[in-house]
Amino acid sequence: MAGQPSRSRMDIIAPVITPFRGGRIDLEAYADHIKNIVRKGVDVVFVAGTTGLGPALTAEEKKALLEAASSAAKRVIFHVASLRLEEAVELAKYAERFGVEAVASVPPYYFPRISERQIARYFRDLCAATSAPLYLYNYPAATGKDVGAPLVKEIGCIRGVKDTNEEIAHTLAYKRLMPEIRVYNGADSLIFASMAVGLDGVVVSAANYLPEAVSAIREAVAAGDVDKARRLQFLINEVLDASRPLGYFAAVYELVKLFQGYDVGEPRPPIYPLEAAERTKLAAAVEKIKERI
Amino acid sequence: MAGQPSRSRMDIIAPVITPFRGGRIDLEAYADHIKNIVRKGVDVVFVAGTTGLGPALTAEEKKALLEAASSAAKRVIFHVASLRLEEAVELAKYAERFGVEAVASVPPYYFPRISERQIARYFRDLCAATSAPLYLYNYPAATGKDVGAPLVKEIGCIRGVKDTNEEIAHTLAYKRLMPEIRVYNGADSLIFASMAVGLDGVVVSAANYLPEAVSAIREAVAAGDVDKARRLQFLINEVLDASRPLGYFAAVYELVKLFQGYDVGEPRPPIYPLEAAERTKLAAAVEKIKERI
Amino acid sequence: MAGQPSRSRMDIIAPVITPFRGGRIDLEAYADHIKNIVRKGVDVVFVAGTTGLGPALTAEEKKALLEAASSAAKRVIFHVASLRLEEAVELAKYAERFGVEAVASVPPYYFPRISERQIARYFRDLCAATSAPLYLYNYPAATGKDVGAPLVKEIGCIRGVKDTNEEIAHTLAYKRLMPEIRVYNGADSLIFASMAVGLDGVVVSAANYLPEAVSAIREAVAAGDVDKARRLQFLINEVLDASRPLGYFAAVYELVKLFQGYDVGEPRPPIYPLEAAERTKLAAAVEKIKERI
Amino acid sequence: MAGQPSRSRMDIIAPVITPFRGGRIDLEAYADHIKNIVRKGVDVVFVAGTTGLGPALTAEEKKALLEAASSAAKRVIFHVASLRLEEAVELAKYAERFGVEAVASVPPYYFPRISERQIARYFRDLCAATSAPLYLYNYPAATGKDVGAPLVKEIGCIRGVKDTNEEIAHTLAYKRLMPEIRVYNGADSLIFASMAVGLDGVVVSAANYLPEAVSAIREAVAAGDVDKARRLQFLINEVLDASRPLGYFAAVYELVKLFQGYDVGEPRPPIYPLEAAERTKLAAAVEKIKERI
Repeated sequence: MAGQPSRSRMDIIAPVITPFRGGRIDLEAYADHIKNIVRKGVDVVFVAGTTGLGPALTAEEKKALLEAASSAAKRVIFHVASLRLEEAVELAKYAERFGVEAVASVPPYYFPRISERQIARYFRDLCAATSAPLYLYNYPAATGKDVGAPLVKEIGCIRGVKDTNEEIAHTLAYKRLMPEIRVYNGADSLIFASMAVGLDGVVVSAANYLPEAVSAIREAVAAGDVDKARRLQFLINEVLDASRPLGYFAAVYELVKLFQGYDVGEPRPPIYPLEAAERTKLAAAVEKIKERI
Repeated sequence: MAGQPSRSRMDIIAPVITPFRGGRIDLEAYADHIKNIVRKGVDVVFVAGTTGLGPALTAEEKKALLEAASSAAKRVIFHVASLRLEEAVELAKYAERFGVEAVASVPPYYFPRISERQIARYFRDLCAATSAPLYLYNYPAATGKDVGAPLVKEIGCIRGVKDTNEEIAHTLAYKRLMPEIRVYNGADSLIFASMAVGLDGVVVSAANYLPEAVSAIREAVAAGDVDKARRLQFLINEVLDASRPLGYFAAVYELVKLFQGYDVGEPRPPIYPLEAAERTKLAAAVEKIKERI
Repeated sequence: MAGQPSRSRMDIIAPVITPFRGGRIDLEAYADHIKNIVRKGVDVVFVAGTTGLGPALTAEEKKALLEAASSAAKRVIFHVASLRLEEAVELAKYAERFGVEAVASVPPYYFPRISERQIARYFRDLCAATSAPLYLYNYPAATGKDVGAPLVKEIGCIRGVKDTNEEIAHTLAYKRLMPEIRVYNGADSLIFASMAVGLDGVVVSAANYLPEAVSAIREAVAAGDVDKARRLQFLINEVLDASRPLGYFAAVYELVKLFQGYDVGEPRPPIYPLEAAERTKLAAAVEKIKERI
Repeated sequence: MAGQPSRSRMDIIAPVITPFRGGRIDLEAYADHIKNIVRKGVDVVFVAGTTGLGPALTAEEKKALLEAASSAAKRVIFHVASLRLEEAVELAKYAERFGVEAVASVPPYYFPRISERQIARYFRDLCAATSAPLYLYNYPAATGKDVGAPLVKEIGCIRGVKDTNEEIAHTLAYKRLMPEIRVYNGADSLIFASMAVGLDGVVVSAANYLPEAVSAIREAVAAGDVDKARRLQFLINEVLDASRPLGYFAAVYELVKLFQGYDVGEPRPPIYPLEAAERTKLAAAVEKIKERI
């Protein structure tokens, strides 16, 4: 379709969950899970993101994940954020040997009242540390601070943005001010909308448990089939409605089992696995959704 | 285009500004303004909305506006919200004689801690008062309360929604739970996105000063031209960036003059007109935007 | 007590409820209610405040309330805010003949994105309109905008502040920047704290239904009896916990009946009276609280 | 003073800064700093809190701080929060050998949408892990979640709370529901208010750079001298106004030098030290404040 050349390049990026068994990472389950979702339409894997419990992993664990992911997928983005710059820099350097597509980082989290100058300096230090392109991972609900388009433009060296944000105009603003960088939205509820407005793609947890649906949304948008794209998005919204009250990050492990049919272990406390009653409730909700996909 | 039948019915609704001169409404300027924007693509006029300073008008003023609007446009939605139910009911009844497309209302504003039961009762009382379809006008930033899709479903008698909300998934949720009602988004920053995801249209202030651009976005979306639609949306975003710091509701009067070339009076205090320095600043910003439309 | 001279001047101000019967104000019930609470320790009555449903009253109704209040209490503050400056000015002028202690106003409500310049101009216009002292009534949860201490200082002509705000440091900031003006906090949950930090008093709904308790808190604070003051405050907090989920402004009418033993009518829709089941529930909660006062 | 027995037991707790030099902790400077502020009125030191950059420290660094603090102060609270439960448990056990007054923890931070059940389980697991009393460190602005009084009551095993919160009624609610536990507020702007309403004390960054002033506020409150207490609090507010725009956590290092006269190193990136221009600006502001203490 002549008018939509950019849509053919829209990426589906999966922030892959990290499978634990007894507090240790199961790297084999991790690689197998990646292979499955890549087969079903995922283009890029995002290692040690929030869904992957990145900020709760040690540096050694992150490195092991990167190695496993690189063996299972061609395109990898590595999330290196740390409250110790030294560690973030070390991880960014480490990433070079794996030919990652990009190194990404949220701004320093937890600490309120960090000045814009300090945030800018953090990203500039990361840029200086690695030859890999640096992506901003903006996630105000997790970090308590918003690194918007004007600040990114001022920082200067950022080559892409994952904006986990319910306001799509906020995400589009990066594209408006910096047409040359890659811009992704990270909200499961905005897969269809992100693709419909021509973002460069999405980075969504749902790509773990329903990569087929995310992929089908992309196809429907490319074909101009708004009704189908919206119907699929609404099914994903139903999954969110059913799982968020239980704690979404714990629920994703269960959703992979329920939708994809295999065990990817469990999260690690303080992200506790769902309890039996919660699992039953979620399974019942999923059953009703499955019939309509 | 076979896959997009719904798009041909997308409405552009203008929340028309109310022109004052010396504290009195200039009804002739009002009707002339409506005729101009209808000619340029506006389908429906929204009378006494927020841009029209509705909550700051007397009941008599609202009635006069309705009469003038009905003579100038075929399709009219009449906003009747009042902190006195008696007055809102009177206005809703009055609307019947003009064959309005709908009567709309924000929930009771100003007062915090109004229970959901009280909000539901307000809308049910309005439904009972008029034979015209009732639309919810949801605008949390103005009213301090969010009347979301589950509550609207429970209320039962609401036939449409204008959701002035930066979160498009919030707007889509009305459509998800009630596919049979009309659903519009009211954010100037989401014109393109609202159309791209197949909402029933938009209710946007920009239709006062740039009806041609809003109309062109609709055409571009219908033609699948994402790049053009986005480029036009970005120009409107630039207008917002330039005018919001000055007080957007006052700025709209000036923007009509700058873009459409005629005088539509001024707002009424406490919505004060822009000062000379503000007008100059805004005019300079508009000049740069105009060249690129 | 030598160290606490200011405490002897702490005012208890009641934002008096407006009693309706069949949609009309019962001025006799209003005056009787005022006389009762003044007898029980209220120093000043605040006419047409939020608890009095001020923004939902007509100008004529507000004038009638002012007249009735002036006959029943010596010290009166008159709330004149209106979305039409002309009306606010008219009310402020009208107040002069009653020798009010002050005229008060919230900033223009409902409309988001009103610039600081416009807010300042609104208050300056009110100052110019009347010889009565002007008080700011700051209530961000109702108006959507915060008129903080630096802006009040810049406005220049404001002689007092009622800050309905859960953050007491925010209220104290007015005192810090302008030691010469009267500063009151308006949160029912902060009666004790406001008095303990030496504000000029409080403007609280609870003075309608528990003037004795508010008065006793003032006495306990003056006597240095922290434990007693806190115990009484906690009982008021229990009332808030029981009534807020039902809609606090409607509940206050019922609380007057339950605690003071007389009927002060009901609110006016869209502030609907409590339903029978809600009244029963509230009465049960009050019963348990009464025993401990 | 008979009416205020509880006030004599109000604690001043310092969340001690962690001095870095070249990325390594200077334990000697740490111990010396503690000794100085204890001499000037600090009762308890809070190790590895937010001001101490706790979430940015390794487990080994936290242990070293605990050891140093225990040698320099009699009463120590140890903050053990970690996004790996295993590590938090290890630190809580480690604390036993030092006879700490309590072990404290924020709820799991960073991750949005953690259910109340998961938060409760985290604190119960910590309680089970150590014989030391467990304190909740509630800091919604940093963690993105509020662990309020009802949830703490339900958890059951929590013996104290540090509530870093601008709403003092929120802090008092813990005392209202659980009179038997220790309750502290953690806002620098509420030192006076917290003491005036009879909380068990405060945990404030200002105790690092102005322990004398914090101590003097306590004395003034005990003596019933509201004016003096408020005057001192206002001076601390001026320090906050001057330092927060620069990044408060970085500024505290500089404030210690400016007010106490000795060097306590610098923070560690991504909490970058202030730049020269920022230091000059802060020093000028402090100079003006110093004259009035």
